[in-house]
This record gives sequence, C-alpha cells and structure tokens, in this order.
Amino acid sequence: MGRPFFERVAIVGVGLIGGSLALDMKRLGLTGHVVGIGRGVENLKIAASRGIVDSWTTELTEGVRGCGLVVVAVPVRSVAKVVEAMMPALTEGTILTDVGSVKARIIEEVEPLLKEGVSFVPAHPIAGTEHSGAAAAFEGLFKDRKCIITPTSRTPEDALETIKELWQAVGSEVVMMDAALHDIVLAGVSHLPHVIAYSLVNTIATMEEKKGQKLLEFSAGGFRDFTRIASSSPEMWADICSMNKEAILDAIEEFQRTLDSIKESIAADDLDAIKGAFERAKKIRDAHINDG
Amino acid sequence: MGRPFFERVAIVGVGLIGGSLALDMKRLGLTGHVVGIGRGVENLKIAASRGIVDSWTTELTEGVRGCGLVVVAVPVRSVAKVVEAMMPALTEGTILTDVGSVKARIIEEVEPLLKEGVSFVPAHPIAGTEHSGAAAAFEGLFKDRKCIITPTSRTPEDALETIKELWQAVGSEVVMMDAALHDIVLAGVSHLPHVIAYSLVNTIATMEEKKGQKLLEFSAGGFRDFTRIASSSPEMWADICSMNKEAILDAIEEFQRTLDSIKESIAADDLDAIKGAFERAKKIRDAHINDG
Repeated sequence: MGRPFFERVAIVGVGLIGGSLALDMKRLGLTGHVVGIGRGVENLKIAASRGIVDSWTTELTEGVRGCGLVVVAVPVRSVAKVVEAMMPALTEGTILTDVGSVKARIIEEVEPLLKEGVSFVPAHPIAGTEHSGAAAAFEGLFKDRKCIITPTSRTPEDALETIKELWQAVGSEVVMMDAALHDIVLAGVSHLPHVIAYSLVNTIATMEEKKGQKLLEFSAGGFRDFTRIASSSPEMWADICSMNKEAILDAIEEFQRTLDSIKESIAADDLDAIKGAFERAKKIRDAHINDG
Repeated sequence: MGRPFFERVAIVGVGLIGGSLALDMKRLGLTGHVVGIGRGVENLKIAASRGIVDSWTTELTEGVRGCGLVVVAVPVRSVAKVVEAMMPALTEGTILTDVGSVKARIIEEVEPLLKEGVSFVPAHPIAGTEHSGAAAAFEGLFKDRKCIITPTSRTPEDALETIKELWQAVGSEVVMMDAALHDIVLAGVSHLPHVIAYSLVNTIATMEEKKGQKLLEFSAGGFRDFTRIASSSPEMWADICSMNKEAILDAIEEFQRTLDSIKESIAADDLDAIKGAFERAKKIRDAHINDG
C-alpha cells in the first residue's frame, strides 16, 4: 500500500471530521499545506490557532485553487451546492472527495456537476462524537475505524486508489460498498439510533409536562449513555434524515414492528416472549460490540 | 443526620446492588456482620472471597435469623416470595427493606405478608450498571446517586428514618415519593430506555437477516453507548416489565406518538419540523445531563 502526498489540500468545512483529517494528514506528512475553507470566521480562527490549517479563507473558489485534493466535509445537504460553486476553480487532475453519512443522494447530485478531468470519490469515514466544530477535532479520530468508499461507474480507478490509501494512511479499514447498500446499513446502525435518541428525550419531556413531575433528574448512567447522541447537531441530523429519507423510513418501520411486538408481549403478560426478545438482543450485542 | 448501626445484616441476593451495599456498610462501619443469602453457591463464594459477606448460606430462614436489617435485593418478581418464606424467622423489631426498580406492585404484594413488629421500608437506589452478580459489586456505587423511598401509611416512622439514614450514609440523596409516581418516573427514564435498546438491537439483527448484509460491524461509538443497556440481564428486565406493566405501556405509547410524529415530518420533507424536534431534545439533554 502506498502513501499519498498532496502539495496543497483544501478542507471545505473544518469541523470534527474535516479538522481531524487535516490534523492527521499534517502529522503523517501527507500534505505540504492545508487550506481551511468555511463560512464561519470564528471557527476558522480556532482551526488556525490549533494548527489544523495552514491558511484559511471564506472564499470557496479562492481557497480550492491549486489544490490537488479537495475534501468536502460540510453537512450532507450542502455538499452539491458547495461542489457546484467551486467547480469553475478546479483544474484537471483534482480529486474531489466527501465524508458524508449519506451516499446515493450525494452521488446523484454531485456527479452531473463534475467537469472533465475532475474525479469524485464518495467516501464516509465511520467515526465521530456528539461534538462538532474545529474545537472538537483531534488526531487519531479515524484510527481503527472503518471508512466506506462507494465508487460508481464514473469513479476513476487511480483517484479511487489514492483516496483508499489516504484513509488507510490515517489508520482506517477501507470497505468498498454500493452506495444504496451503504445508505441502508447506516440508516440502521446510525441514523435510526439518532432519531430514536432524540425521540426518547422528547418523550421524557412530554411526560414531565403531562405529569407535572421532574423525571430527568432521576435518570442514571444508562440513560446518560443512551441519550448521548441526542446532543448531536440538530441541523446536521435533520439534513441526514432528509437526504436518506427512504432508508431511514424503512428502518423506523422495522423498529416500530419490533417495539410493537415487545409491547404486545408486555400487555399479554407473556413473560417468556419478553425474556426471549431481551435475550436475543443481549446475545447479539455481547457478541458484536466491544465495550472495552 | 444519624448513622445507623446493625449488629447483623442479611443481604438476600448478593448481586450488583446487594453486594455493593454490603461493601459500603462494612467499609463505613455500619454493621458488625453481613450474612449473604442466595440460591447460587458460586456467586456466594465469590462474595465471600471478595469480602462482601462475612458468612453465607442458601437457607433463607437460617440466614435471616437474628438480623436487625434484612435487605431483599432479588429480582422484583421474587421479592414477595422471598419475604413470605422468611417471615416466620423474623423477630419483632426487624427492619425489612428492598431495592426494587418497581414499587407499587411490590408494596401491594409484600405488605399483607408482614407480621406484627416487622417493618417494611420500600426503597429504590437509582444506581447500577449493565453487569450483575457479586463479581460486579463495588464500593461507592451509591455515592452522589438518588435513592427513592416510597413509604406507605403502614411504614413506621422510626424504620423509615433508619433506612433514610442508611442510604444517606452510603452517599445517596434520599427522595421521598409516592410509589405510583415512582413507577411512572422510572418507567420513563429507565424501563422505557431498556425496552427501546433491546428493540433496537433486535431491529438491526432483523435488518441483517432480511438484507443478507452485516450491519453491526459498521456501528460506531454512538451505537455502542446507545445499546449498552441492552447487555443488561434479560430475566431481571422481563420481570420489571411484568411488574410495572401499566406505566411501561403508557411510556411506550407516549414514545410511539413522538417517534411517529418525527417519522411523519421526515416523510413529508418537513425539514423545519425535524430540526425543531431534534433541537428540543438537544436543548433538554444538554441542560439536564452531565457527561463529565
């Protein structure tokens, strides 16, 4: 496996993901210069003071000029808008990639915008925390994580290989997957849990209002862990829900059927069925998830 | 506030809660001797080797004899059975207490079993992990946690005060609450999240089967935290669902309405409504839950 090198890299959206990638690329000597591009000057100043970017600008076309790699790390609903706006400034040989949690819709929106000689490699590093912004970025975020790349018939082999090597260089295991399948997988293990976590917190709030009784102060560690992802960016997650609508609606419906079935078992006092459902879940989780 | 002292204490069910309480009582000099009582000899041997109990027995009536305090820390569906079986061996002045996550039904089952001179103080320390058994017990589990006590018209004042002091001595904040209200509160912040976590893991498993595609290996830290409570004891949680049935069914229905409403907003491409719901949840969680 080779190690890619880019003289000049543009990171559009210097948040948790974009900022952490920039930190790793600099640390590992994968780039000579990182340009941070964004709309928020305060965030860009934080990025500069933390050594995440070497220079920054709020002017997209100015920022991407002369960059061999452009990483678009903005909320998923804005990817295509950003790509469209920067396209005139990109030159032949530029590799464009993204980090969005939704792939099919982004590909559908971005590929028609590409001009001759510009490669687009759709990618999604599966890493993150509930925090966002350049202040939340850190070295090593992608180590031992998976990064899913979803090439299409239009993705050039050499650009694909370069982006694969980039993610491997920062410590990720790269998995190739069809974009539609990616969106189903992520709807299940990431998008659905976020929708549920937000819903649960709102349910407790509604119960508090209806009963005129505080509830949250009687929650313990399990609840804190369970709802941590409900502290994620509402804007980012609303965007994801809109961009992966069908797969998320399917996942919600699958979940509703499962919950309904447990609810019926509880209503019917069917202790064996309740215990059986809980045992199935515990067995699967203990076998697949490492809390260590 | 006084510090209670019991020459001899029986812990029936030396698990995470019973075992941790025994450890704290010994450490703080609140007892001269702890008798561990249970059905599983292996678990009792672990408790003895870890210094959690001073002696142990599988014979309930033998074990509780001569104990001024009997803590029943068995699964909620077994509390009344255990109390009934030990009652002939209890003497005047004994304080009986429990630690169950359900209160109204336990009170309803236990109070008719009490003989003259035996006090019952229903209590629920809000603490725990997804682990169980004597091996999982540790000192300080109850520090800075809440302990809800749900006295009834039959609870003697002096016994109530003693149990209150016991939980305060191990570092808990004691809150008095009506048993029915306790059950509604816990259904919301604890029982519902467990039912949802188990349901979510089973949903992912069903999706894996239907799609013939692995999903769990693409999950990240958020999913791990979110589903941690699905590694809790299936038997214990099935018991809780059966013993707090009405409040849990109400909480599930409130959650279903909330989730349905978000699902409808996603289906209708109503980005403002989705974002509004997520913002409400984030604001509430950030204000009430401390991740530090």
